[in-house]
Amino acid sequence: MADTDWPGCARSLKGVILDMCGVLYDSGEGDGVAIPGSIEAVKRLKASDLQLRFCTNETQAARETFVAKLQRLGFDILVSEVFSPAPAAAAVLKERGLRPHLLVYDGLLPEFDSVDQSNPNCVVIGDAAEKFTYQNLNEAFRVLTDLEKPLLFSLGQGRYYKETDGLKLDVGAYMKALEYACDLKAEVVGKPSPTFFQSVLNDMGLQPHEALMIGDDLVNDVGGAQRCGMRGVQVRTGKYRAPLQKRASNSPT
Amino acid sequence: MADTDWPGCARSLKGVILDMCGVLYDSGEGDGVAIPGSIEAVKRLKASDLQLRFCTNETQAARETFVAKLQRLGFDILVSEVFSPAPAAAAVLKERGLRPHLLVYDGLLPEFDSVDQSNPNCVVIGDAAEKFTYQNLNEAFRVLTDLEKPLLFSLGQGRYYKETDGLKLDVGAYMKALEYACDLKAEVVGKPSPTFFQSVLNDMGLQPHEALMIGDDLVNDVGGAQRCGMRGVQVRTGKYRAPLQKRASNSPT
Repeated sequence: MADTDWPGCARSLKGVILDMCGVLYDSGEGDGVAIPGSIEAVKRLKASDLQLRFCTNETQAARETFVAKLQRLGFDILVSEVFSPAPAAAAVLKERGLRPHLLVYDGLLPEFDSVDQSNPNCVVIGDAAEKFTYQNLNEAFRVLTDLEKPLLFSLGQGRYYKETDGLKLDVGAYMKALEYACDLKAEVVGKPSPTFFQSVLNDMGLQPHEALMIGDDLVNDVGGAQRCGMRGVQVRTGKYRAPLQKRASNSPT
Repeated sequence: MADTDWPGCARSLKGVILDMCGVLYDSGEGDGVAIPGSIEAVKRLKASDLQLRFCTNETQAARETFVAKLQRLGFDILVSEVFSPAPAAAAVLKERGLRPHLLVYDGLLPEFDSVDQSNPNCVVIGDAAEKFTYQNLNEAFRVLTDLEKPLLFSLGQGRYYKETDGLKLDVGAYMKALEYACDLKAEVVGKPSPTFFQSVLNDMGLQPHEALMIGDDLVNDVGGAQRCGMRGVQVRTGKYRAPLQKRASNSPT
């Protein structure tokens, strides 16, 4: 954010939306580790007049499990304050009468318990990490090629994220692999989808110019928020890398 | 190929280039199986006045091993008649002083024995099948992100191929995954690269209009040959699937 813009923005600011992984904590073995200063920052935001929500493309665990982890790390966070792609996707599938073949982290499966998964007529992928085996990807690919109208949903489109042992490919890379193999375009649920950001603004009862999104991903956090009319701030923790930054097509406000 | 074009083409035809997997045989357990009629077809082409070459994006085994398999299946084929991406890539790497991190099938490694692989300054991926694990892809990704100028070579860009137990994702899908994650464009070695087709034409001493490419892949075989000025014929064996065909942007001549 350019310094000259900050005072004007600050006066109208009524709400803050925080990305979680890479902003509040770095994931990895066990619960991962809180980023220094972030627990205190959440505390101060909650004590302020600003509204606060959390907006994550986390799809390795159901929301309850995920929030419990953050609480163990010391964060003052409630499930009702957290917006994530899986519950949003489950709602879309039910609305449209779709039966998914799921390629997601085992921990995320409970979010789809209420969705009919027999005789699949679409594929849903999330960050499946170690489950992104050649065999599992072939299985998802074959479901798509057997459909008259192949339909792929992707829970986010992140390129990569940081865990304590290094950078790791995110769901977006595998989304692109299946898009190319099947010659189709996936429907993205989660950041940077405008529908997803709008649902958070609706929950706060705010206009886009009254809200600020803070994330470590220039495309999904900053770019997504900017396209909705919000301000976007990029932190230099998490996946931030100067050399990659130079090649990006947008920049933080 | 439209019927009306065939007689004109046949008069000038001096050479035939055959794709191998999906045209001569279906791969799978063991040596795979010869496609009915293909052993006899190769025999008749060799007995004719036409020159014959084989052009494959096969990257699961070194050429010697691969040709020996085809010979066991009953095909009259010599190593010197076969063009494949790995020897072409090894030549490019040596020419440009590049040291590859290899993500390829174990059987292909001997093709790179003469290439320095210490302290890698590029990544080469081929169809690695079961070796396309999350861990191996992350490793290739990290090599690329650590480079000042990330450089990715892909041995072919096929979307998928057919084995006896079904369709499987080809190297192109994983190339797209890494391209997206690293925000770069891979250099493709093999079909449909014009350089690759031209090297086959040179070997036969023919002009493009004197040669016919026969393959099961509309983009890499037929499209690649057409862009070089050759005729392209698509067989309906191998990976051919009517529903996928309908969505393609080019068509056989």
